[in-house]
Amino acid sequence: MPASEHGPRERLVVSAAQLIRRDGVGATGMRDVAEHANAPRGSLQHYFPGGKEQLVNEAVGWAGRYAARRVTRHLDALDALGGQERRPSGLLAAMVRQWTVELTATDYTFGCTIAAVTIDCAESSAPARVAAATAFAGWQAPLTAALGELCIPAARASSLATLVISSLEGALLIARAEQSVRAFEAMNAELGPLLDAAVAPQSR
Amino acid sequence: MPASEHGPRERLVVSAAQLIRRDGVGATGMRDVAEHANAPRGSLQHYFPGGKEQLVNEAVGWAGRYAARRVTRHLDALDALGGQERRPSGLLAAMVRQWTVELTATDYTFGCTIAAVTIDCAESSAPARVAAATAFAGWQAPLTAALGELCIPAARASSLATLVISSLEGALLIARAEQSVRAFEAMNAELGPLLDAAVAPQSR
Repeated sequence: MPASEHGPRERLVVSAAQLIRRDGVGATGMRDVAEHANAPRGSLQHYFPGGKEQLVNEAVGWAGRYAARRVTRHLDALDALGGQERRPSGLLAAMVRQWTVELTATDYTFGCTIAAVTIDCAESSAPARVAAATAFAGWQAPLTAALGELCIPAARASSLATLVISSLEGALLIARAEQSVRAFEAMNAELGPLLDAAVAPQSR
Repeated sequence: MPASEHGPRERLVVSAAQLIRRDGVGATGMRDVAEHANAPRGSLQHYFPGGKEQLVNEAVGWAGRYAARRVTRHLDALDALGGQERRPSGLLAAMVRQWTVELTATDYTFGCTIAAVTIDCAESSAPARVAAATAFAGWQAPLTAALGELCIPAARASSLATLVISSLEGALLIARAEQSVRAFEAMNAELGPLLDAAVAPQSR
């Protein structure tokens, strides 16, 4: 979603999210955000009177909502395909594909805003930590619902959704360090069959 | 391992690793490291002429070696227990237990040095990125070997070790944000049985 489609306030939030996921919170300055969003520096004070902390918290909130929307879109695409593609492993593969495509397209500079805010702010800022927790929860809810739609019983849909998000986050770290998508391939190979095997027997 | 058991140089490296995993790389200053290690500031220039970058790279290397040693110790402990405990799910449970105990003992300020260096430095410092990749690889090798010792065929031991490390890293992020060990419980519940089911049939 290019930043130019948004109004000036959201452009600043999206730019902050994009810089934070690439460089971390510490290395992302307010001046960098204004420049990236092509906005006058004064607009930051205007829209974000709470300064960098407010902007960071809104960026992580935006990232959580964006991740949640992507889950819904992947599920819609699977519904449109139908047949053998409409399986939990197909949803996992779509999520993995989106991240590996972004990773390779950006020469492995692509990271996760929620992860960066957690690592850089969990200890120093309670509001940032809570914003990160809310973002994870806002991503987990539609993923749990999607796994339920794909006939995984409720008792396991939640724990499997958590496992998928955990391993996506960790695979992203390994992939950026190694500059390789190996860790994502391991997810498809090992988690895909686990998800499909969790489908209720009468629904297979 | 208390820092006081080491010589002055290693104390500085261990202190850097501990501050980085709690606060991130950006928020960890050289002065903080010297104070934490109870060392004169001049000793940093003496031992680390390459400055903060050298210290960060050595800290992530230390963290990788420490993670590798823990895998070996967990496997030794399982060997001593024997019987039903000596299963891949027992190794996973021991790794999860170590992190959840550290998390709750530190009021969820405990993080991973390798993850922090990846997020804060992957884009800005090629040597730090390579040090993080080396640390992940140094952790993956003994875990792959341990899963092999526990009778998982070589073809899957490597991808399952990658999945375990990915999900540990991601669960740590979620746990710190949420201040809850829920994501680790999901790992035991879902990955434990997957690991045990991967044991070669004649070895069960």
